[in-house]
Amino acid sequence: MTKTNTPIIIVNFKTYSEATGSKALQLAKNCEKISLEAEIRVGVAPQLVDLKQIVKAVSIPVFAQHMDPIKPGSSTGHVLPESIKEAGASGTLINHSERRIKLADIDTTITRAREVGLTSLVCTNNSAVSAAVASLKPDMIAIEPPELIGTGISVSKAKPEIVSGTVELVNRINPDLVVLCGAGITTGEDVAAALRLGTKGVLVASGVVKAQNSYNVLSEFAEATARA
Amino acid sequence: MTKTNTPIIIVNFKTYSEATGSKALQLAKNCEKISLEAEIRVGVAPQLVDLKQIVKAVSIPVFAQHMDPIKPGSSTGHVLPESIKEAGASGTLINHSERRIKLADIDTTITRAREVGLTSLVCTNNSAVSAAVASLKPDMIAIEPPELIGTGISVSKAKPEIVSGTVELVNRINPDLVVLCGAGITTGEDVAAALRLGTKGVLVASGVVKAQNSYNVLSEFAEATARA
Amino acid sequence: MTKTNTPIIIVNFKTYSEATGSKALQLAKNCEKISLEAEIRVGVAPQLVDLKQIVKAVSIPVFAQHMDPIKPGSSTGHVLPESIKEAGASGTLINHSERRIKLADIDTTITRAREVGLTSLVCTNNSAVSAAVASLKPDMIAIEPPELIGTGISVSKAKPEIVSGTVELVNRINPDLVVLCGAGITTGEDVAAALRLGTKGVLVASGVVKAQNSYNVLSEFAEATARA
Amino acid sequence: MTKTNTPIIIVNFKTYSEATGSKALQLAKNCEKISLEAEIRVGVAPQLVDLKQIVKAVSIPVFAQHMDPIKPGSSTGHVLPESIKEAGASGTLINHSERRIKLADIDTTITRAREVGLTSLVCTNNSAVSAAVASLKPDMIAIEPPELIGTGISVSKAKPEIVSGTVELVNRINPDLVVLCGAGITTGEDVAAALRLGTKGVLVASGVVKAQNSYNVLSEFAEATARA
Repeated sequence: MTKTNTPIIIVNFKTYSEATGSKALQLAKNCEKISLEAEIRVGVAPQLVDLKQIVKAVSIPVFAQHMDPIKPGSSTGHVLPESIKEAGASGTLINHSERRIKLADIDTTITRAREVGLTSLVCTNNSAVSAAVASLKPDMIAIEPPELIGTGISVSKAKPEIVSGTVELVNRINPDLVVLCGAGITTGEDVAAALRLGTKGVLVASGVVKAQNSYNVLSEFAEATARA
Repeated sequence: MTKTNTPIIIVNFKTYSEATGSKALQLAKNCEKISLEAEIRVGVAPQLVDLKQIVKAVSIPVFAQHMDPIKPGSSTGHVLPESIKEAGASGTLINHSERRIKLADIDTTITRAREVGLTSLVCTNNSAVSAAVASLKPDMIAIEPPELIGTGISVSKAKPEIVSGTVELVNRINPDLVVLCGAGITTGEDVAAALRLGTKGVLVASGVVKAQNSYNVLSEFAEATARA
Repeated sequence: MTKTNTPIIIVNFKTYSEATGSKALQLAKNCEKISLEAEIRVGVAPQLVDLKQIVKAVSIPVFAQHMDPIKPGSSTGHVLPESIKEAGASGTLINHSERRIKLADIDTTITRAREVGLTSLVCTNNSAVSAAVASLKPDMIAIEPPELIGTGISVSKAKPEIVSGTVELVNRINPDLVVLCGAGITTGEDVAAALRLGTKGVLVASGVVKAQNSYNVLSEFAEATARA
Repeated sequence: MTKTNTPIIIVNFKTYSEATGSKALQLAKNCEKISLEAEIRVGVAPQLVDLKQIVKAVSIPVFAQHMDPIKPGSSTGHVLPESIKEAGASGTLINHSERRIKLADIDTTITRAREVGLTSLVCTNNSAVSAAVASLKPDMIAIEPPELIGTGISVSKAKPEIVSGTVELVNRINPDLVVLCGAGITTGEDVAAALRLGTKGVLVASGVVKAQNSYNVLSEFAEATARA
């Protein structure tokens, strides 16, 4: 989902009640609706149990929330890259702040994603870590200062220089890397600010999932990015 | 799946190629077939991504391979008990030797399974650990000495006194606890031996999943248990 | 340190500034002083780096705060039981709420402690987990509900029935097990209450370490236990 | 220990019997002896329990094998940077292959090492990961392909292009970074090869610790580097 300049919104469903089971399916359909109507590309990252059903129901990119750096074999309770691919997903989040993994495992998971044909989106917490991840050559990164996650305070407002500085720093190491920004995104203005600071879009969770009307929030995002 | 004396076979699909995606579905149907034909109860533990589809396709118990001790909320990349329940699963493995968890998390996961109405099946590695788990009041345990897993050497043959001793020990602490045995189960005689030693059945993986004909292996298990 | 009925106080130094390096040594000497003067037995659990120096300086029991379930070999950055023993320590904490470990590792660490001649003291968070640990046959357990740690609200006051119920439950499984109670211990009355509920003593941290005068606090503990 | 061009040898004591307690002290003294006699700088990385005693006994750099990314406070069983510093150590290994940590924790541990005045030496497993770590600005890295550790097959022989390529790659990102190489170092020729490929020295473990005469092995290293 990285060829054009159309802004990218990826909605992380986390393990919220509002995004589990049949509610996850409905939320994914709302995301697809806005994606068809407006000039934004919306992807979803549902829970693993709901992933395959959502892939079948919608035509937008679907990401796993986590994937293990393993090959097929004896690994009970782990997430096999091949299982994500065969389910029809487009990619996977890696190293989300709520699911941090070891450095060597980030490297191997990116490699495994490439091998099976999945887009890798690595979450990072600051500029130095973002630069580090750039050397591992994932497809995308999302910078999310953990102290802002779930606060409603957007990183693009609270720490704009982290966002613009990170975009510059990582693109010096890896010019093809798509940078998103996350943490605290709740309004269209947050999304527009993220784009003005050089990112290609946002990774958002509670701002959409826990909204009274997720479709309306995404509409606001789309309108704000059209003006940005 | 614990009321009658009909032997229980639970097939752990792990992350084997032979038990991923469409192959997982086919394997689950073979398990259902033998369950309908013979005097054994067969349950399956597929990968999370395949779980919901398999629940819809078959009428036998389906277990998750792992579940996290969490409540709905901000937990990216984790396995929410409510998501497993809403998908229609019957229960979950906990603390498999390939996915060991902390003691306090075993306790909380068992509690959460009970809260949402899932059967808890905790894997253990020796008699002392089995007795410890019995105090946490899960529905079932499966004793699997890790040094035997995947070897084709059955615990009921290599260490029969561990199996019978564990059954006695845990039932003194918790008389309702159903004890299975695992590790190295490949033949009907392994299953029959497990039953003779006081268990209610087996947890099996490669012996079925990697068999040339999984249906035939399960048939052999059923015949052997009928004679046991 | 389990033969007599003299109350046991174990002071966990954690990684507090007030209990690091030369300050750790001074605190250990205060603990030794009160141990010689009053009818209590005081043990200390300093950081690993300070352990050997403290063992040489004082004649009271010294515990490691954590130990790994390993044998001598290739384990960089881990804590070898033999290194703790050769340093002259008496025992080790296991599974503290700030250093929870896997169930199978608790079992192996207790076994390794026994093999090298160290006292094992396992921390637990509730009655069910305490009963589970009793089956693993450590020398001592300390029940510390995590929600009370560092609050100044003593478990023996906030949840007296947990303490007395746990003592009864674990001694049914393992009559030799010495039960301590921790979390929120700050006054002599907290210690006296813990003893009245059937424990043999307490595991305490900030209540002593962060006191203006640790010697005075320990004196108060000793006086209260003499009256208990 | 990074100003001159004198080759650096850092000896990782791991948790080997031959490098525990009084034997650790003797080994450290042998390392000091060769350091005083020959044109090499030798540092040692003993177990935490032995660290302070060794710092007092020898005048060569002493490293911790692991350090946690924490500040003083409530962290039972963890390794506080301030405790390592106050003990007189020079630095710490970070992310050894036997003690891999999360990416965000590598970043924080490097920062904490700088704050308290310790040299940070991060272990890496391949070129991409080495480049990633270079962006985090540690003082030194040691590249150790895990498949070679403990084999006696030196990375500088088995995979010379990994070593030279990594030196070039990381120095493009961070010209001040000192690169060592590890895994399989047993002979003087291994050390000389490492230097010829652009590294400043080696991180060695069993090759020295488990040698019949560690002093002789280090002498051979010194002679080979003098010729290199």
